[in-house]
Amino acid sequence: MNAPLPTAQLRQQLYRDMDPHNLTPLWEVLHALVPPQPRTPCVPAFWRYDEVRPYLMRAGEVITAEEAVRRVLILENPKLRGQSAVTQSLYAGLQLILPGEVAPSHRHTQSALRFIVEGSGAYTAVDGERTTMRPGDFIITPSWTWHDHGHEARDPVVWLDGLDIPMIRFFDAGFAQNDTSKSQQVTRTEGTSFARYGHNMAPVRGAAPHGRTSPIFSYPYERSREALERLERDAPLDAWDGTKLRYVNPITGGWPMPTIGTFLQKLPAGFAGQGSRQTDGAVYSVVEGEGEVTVSAGEQEWRCAFGPRDHFVVPSWHTARFSSEKGCVLFSFSDRPVHEALGIHHEERLS
Amino acid sequence: MNAPLPTAQLRQQLYRDMDPHNLTPLWEVLHALVPPQPRTPCVPAFWRYDEVRPYLMRAGEVITAEEAVRRVLILENPKLRGQSAVTQSLYAGLQLILPGEVAPSHRHTQSALRFIVEGSGAYTAVDGERTTMRPGDFIITPSWTWHDHGHEARDPVVWLDGLDIPMIRFFDAGFAQNDTSKSQQVTRTEGTSFARYGHNMAPVRGAAPHGRTSPIFSYPYERSREALERLERDAPLDAWDGTKLRYVNPITGGWPMPTIGTFLQKLPAGFAGQGSRQTDGAVYSVVEGEGEVTVSAGEQEWRCAFGPRDHFVVPSWHTARFSSEKGCVLFSFSDRPVHEALGIHHEERLS
Amino acid sequence: MNAPLPTAQLRQQLYRDMDPHNLTPLWEVLHALVPPQPRTPCVPAFWRYDEVRPYLMRAGEVITAEEAVRRVLILENPKLRGQSAVTQSLYAGLQLILPGEVAPSHRHTQSALRFIVEGSGAYTAVDGERTTMRPGDFIITPSWTWHDHGHEARDPVVWLDGLDIPMIRFFDAGFAQNDTSKSQQVTRTEGTSFARYGHNMAPVRGAAPHGRTSPIFSYPYERSREALERLERDAPLDAWDGTKLRYVNPITGGWPMPTIGTFLQKLPAGFAGQGSRQTDGAVYSVVEGEGEVTVSAGEQEWRCAFGPRDHFVVPSWHTARFSSEKGCVLFSFSDRPVHEALGIHHEERLS
Amino acid sequence: MNAPLPTAQLRQQLYRDMDPHNLTPLWEVLHALVPPQPRTPCVPAFWRYDEVRPYLMRAGEVITAEEAVRRVLILENPKLRGQSAVTQSLYAGLQLILPGEVAPSHRHTQSALRFIVEGSGAYTAVDGERTTMRPGDFIITPSWTWHDHGHEARDPVVWLDGLDIPMIRFFDAGFAQNDTSKSQQVTRTEGTSFARYGHNMAPVRGAAPHGRTSPIFSYPYERSREALERLERDAPLDAWDGTKLRYVNPITGGWPMPTIGTFLQKLPAGFAGQGSRQTDGAVYSVVEGEGEVTVSAGEQEWRCAFGPRDHFVVPSWHTARFSSEKGCVLFSFSDRPVHEALGIHHEERLS
Repeated sequence: MNAPLPTAQLRQQLYRDMDPHNLTPLWEVLHALVPPQPRTPCVPAFWRYDEVRPYLMRAGEVITAEEAVRRVLILENPKLRGQSAVTQSLYAGLQLILPGEVAPSHRHTQSALRFIVEGSGAYTAVDGERTTMRPGDFIITPSWTWHDHGHEARDPVVWLDGLDIPMIRFFDAGFAQNDTSKSQQVTRTEGTSFARYGHNMAPVRGAAPHGRTSPIFSYPYERSREALERLERDAPLDAWDGTKLRYVNPITGGWPMPTIGTFLQKLPAGFAGQGSRQTDGAVYSVVEGEGEVTVSAGEQEWRCAFGPRDHFVVPSWHTARFSSEKGCVLFSFSDRPVHEALGIHHEERLS
Repeated sequence: MNAPLPTAQLRQQLYRDMDPHNLTPLWEVLHALVPPQPRTPCVPAFWRYDEVRPYLMRAGEVITAEEAVRRVLILENPKLRGQSAVTQSLYAGLQLILPGEVAPSHRHTQSALRFIVEGSGAYTAVDGERTTMRPGDFIITPSWTWHDHGHEARDPVVWLDGLDIPMIRFFDAGFAQNDTSKSQQVTRTEGTSFARYGHNMAPVRGAAPHGRTSPIFSYPYERSREALERLERDAPLDAWDGTKLRYVNPITGGWPMPTIGTFLQKLPAGFAGQGSRQTDGAVYSVVEGEGEVTVSAGEQEWRCAFGPRDHFVVPSWHTARFSSEKGCVLFSFSDRPVHEALGIHHEERLS
Repeated sequence: MNAPLPTAQLRQQLYRDMDPHNLTPLWEVLHALVPPQPRTPCVPAFWRYDEVRPYLMRAGEVITAEEAVRRVLILENPKLRGQSAVTQSLYAGLQLILPGEVAPSHRHTQSALRFIVEGSGAYTAVDGERTTMRPGDFIITPSWTWHDHGHEARDPVVWLDGLDIPMIRFFDAGFAQNDTSKSQQVTRTEGTSFARYGHNMAPVRGAAPHGRTSPIFSYPYERSREALERLERDAPLDAWDGTKLRYVNPITGGWPMPTIGTFLQKLPAGFAGQGSRQTDGAVYSVVEGEGEVTVSAGEQEWRCAFGPRDHFVVPSWHTARFSSEKGCVLFSFSDRPVHEALGIHHEERLS
Repeated sequence: MNAPLPTAQLRQQLYRDMDPHNLTPLWEVLHALVPPQPRTPCVPAFWRYDEVRPYLMRAGEVITAEEAVRRVLILENPKLRGQSAVTQSLYAGLQLILPGEVAPSHRHTQSALRFIVEGSGAYTAVDGERTTMRPGDFIITPSWTWHDHGHEARDPVVWLDGLDIPMIRFFDAGFAQNDTSKSQQVTRTEGTSFARYGHNMAPVRGAAPHGRTSPIFSYPYERSREALERLERDAPLDAWDGTKLRYVNPITGGWPMPTIGTFLQKLPAGFAGQGSRQTDGAVYSVVEGEGEVTVSAGEQEWRCAFGPRDHFVVPSWHTARFSSEKGCVLFSFSDRPVHEALGIHHEERLS
């Protein structure tokens, strides 16, 4: 008579037997599935503009905007290479358009933001209305709206693209269509949407033209910066964020897009901020000035000096601490609206 | 043996018997209680500024702002005399403040709007922040915030006050307090609230400072008018309203106050509008230009030409039709937010 | 040469001169307009059922339900006689329907509640669905839905009607229509609405059938009472309210009607509650048991013992204190949803 | 002199050069990133209960509930093996608890549902309140609430666990804690939460105890089934879904959890449904009866007969068509609340 098998062996045998039935024992993985705190696979990463720009220009030589549909260099998180993702849920890229070019019209479920990094005079057209781009402008392409880009002025224009591509892929919910014509027809004068919704007033009649997404396409940098400056002068400085504002959808008071939140902040000269961490990982674009960011998680620490047009990503639950000798302005975006909608946003401010 | 009393007599006897018990037969009044359509006791009324202004100035001579607390001539609906009401739910008045005067600080449940009619340089202070007044500015005093007014410039300043006084009285819900000091202390630079919330951006942290009421105190006419003008140029004209915008609470997308909605509209030169009626009665203040309004209800019709600084009221379910040879700009306010919150707003556009 | 007129005289002269222009000096009435705390014209009032019932029965003799359209004795606030109002904003009445009678079909903007006081077997039909009435059931007629009542069983049926008639009148927003047929056609089995929405489940498709109003017509007393009893046993007693629940619109979580809130509460035997006051005045219907309520405002105090089917009203900002030797169940309704929507609800609990 | 390199070669050289900088060309992957319609990696899968049950029982022999913390066999999507995921965003598993066992107390950000499959008498305790399990009951563990399970009756109890584990991992937002004591202390009588919120009534005071999650822990099958049956009898049948209800959070009218929607549906005997597809993939648990489901995507088709306690998954944008000769009841859950919150839910009903 055989001795009974030891438990460990019985378990392995069970695992083997049930495996073909697509069954797996939870208890072997439970700890990894519900970790004590977020353990993102992402790491911080930095893209110095003077290193990235030459590649953008070379891209301008080897492919046309039209051929590429969108001539973009994707900023990939070093630990998510091949996934076109800068955090697990977000996509970021730098798009180049050259004078005379057109990026053809299409639409998709994915929401997009553009933040203008270099150059002026290109336009993006959304739903029949064009917006001319200037550095620092924050421009939106709402989900499922026709959009194309073009450039009729002199110098190259580069902008940061932020999309919810990985999120829509994760939820298996993306649709897309190409337009039959290259550029859509212009049906409204430039600035009409802003005139209608951008002045703390709104039409008496008519539904929100883009559902949960802001009816304003373009938040001009001039006005955003003015707000920051006024507040820096008049309101108390935040020890973590300096002066920080979020962009607002003027007909809901909420985020400009249901999936992406956007922010603009100003660190005054001499700022030495304290650290904080959030569950939403964020991508930063340096608009003006210089500074330094220290990112840490557990024992690890990354430190980086930054200047205009540099980009970097602070992953979920990584502590970021900002400082700036001469002052600076930073644009950033994250998936915070989703964290809030799902009731899972969490934040910690260290002191 | 007596014959039985006829029914009519029995009913009367019942009414008499139960009257001391505070009981009344519904069937004698049912039709009046649930009329087939609104039957407001209010009538249209007009206040020509050149007729009203002399009384305002005489008021300036016979009482000081401080003594009066608020030196206001109430615009009473002719059919609601003695009730301090311009419609059943709203109060309107013209307030005068003279150079050097102060209207002392108090607060109350009632929400207030100020629409500047004449003169510049007076201020209103709300919760520690002053706003300088210019003609056409729309300014808010949120419910239960300390506020006072003062005037340090040269000429008389007159503004339209709109409050929900009759509504708060109807709901038996009003509280009030006087401040111990005449004017409240200034704790924030002028314009801070606007910088914080007026540019389609908002602070990342912190709750709405005034609950359901807009955190913006002042909607400057310059910007509101610019929006109207842009839209008049670029968007199709509405056959009833010309170009009409509502003021927006930038952190909810809703009305600036929970009880009062405000509007600004522009009729282009040559406009001959069609008639419409609403359940919410509205008070109008003419900002610029000239025009004519025809108000009708059943067989009755009122017609009035208007010019700058004139005021008039269009009661509930009265049809109003506007026209303007030279073009004009009109500010108006009503209790539409309440009609919408209660699900009782109704509108009819005639063609 | 005459001496200048004294100020008081000048003021009077100004008042007289401007009066024909519908202008009134605010400063003479300001204090009354913004009182330091609510000063309702209403007073508490009590209707003992054994006093009221005989009048109801006499009404049954002198007029038919059909002739009356609605055979109701209105409970009028002693200080609002002639206004068909129990508080400034609400209407209450006791409706009688006799076996074989029909109260014909109509609809109106006004929302209505029925709370069954005596008798069983009458029905109310709303939008094609009938509900049979049993004592303690809370039944809703949503705004602008066809409704009629009928009675095919044996004994008289009496219910409390609560409507927002004065409120809709105040806002000049009421419409009404009579049906061409006496009773509407039945298109759904009794109980369908409850089956659809009453079990913490809802249809996957389809909009809310009555907008902001609960899709449930009838909240049966049996279930409401069961909830109260369970909580009385298991949850801590509230020192002011005993055990008190509000009725809920199951597809919004909010009030059953946008204008009226309804409540059911149980005071255990031996309860001696503390006093509280609210800005919303409330009408009470005693369902079971006996008790006593003391209402006070300033120096004045009203005290009343109550038993089954008695009714009383506690006006705005009057302190009510309940006690009960043997225990009792109370239904009540007020305009609290409006106070909350307008941001003016206020409450004070004394200890 | 060399000839210039061909474009293709120049591009490859660019890709190689920029690769170390975490830069990738969008144009090489664009089509895959924004596909014309959802292309989930998931496939349909079926778990017949008579095949799964023996493994569950063997698991009962090789590990205790306490040692396992949760003794669960994860239902893994065949194309997501090793990821503990049944769809990209959801986790499903079958949990076994034996008489006398305890699954120790912990809490985590992840929301959980339990749907009882076999056996009675086990309990789950949430926040100090126990709920006894019966087949067909739908029970919730809100995010970040302490919970443990135990079993004091006779036979094995098996339930379906549904959690948002992959979603919380994707958003890098999960926290977890183990309790210091094995089972939490009972502080409320069983049924208190249901008494408080389950009868279309709610406490007058106090905030929602679990934020966006339903305050009801347990939706008993008895009542849910009764609702289905009533509707099947009285309301028109849906050609796609038969009679289908969603579970409701009674204090919001929305979904029971912010991340997971749950449904119960009844197909009458002889039902032959039409096909529909949704962006939200769903997991089904067969409660009663028998039927057949055909799932298709493009050319591929899966067909499966099912009986009581069987489970299956219909992935995103796969067409499902149900039929049933003898009638059946199905429970299902999906991430629809998230699709709706993000504005990306899409559905197509074929006819």
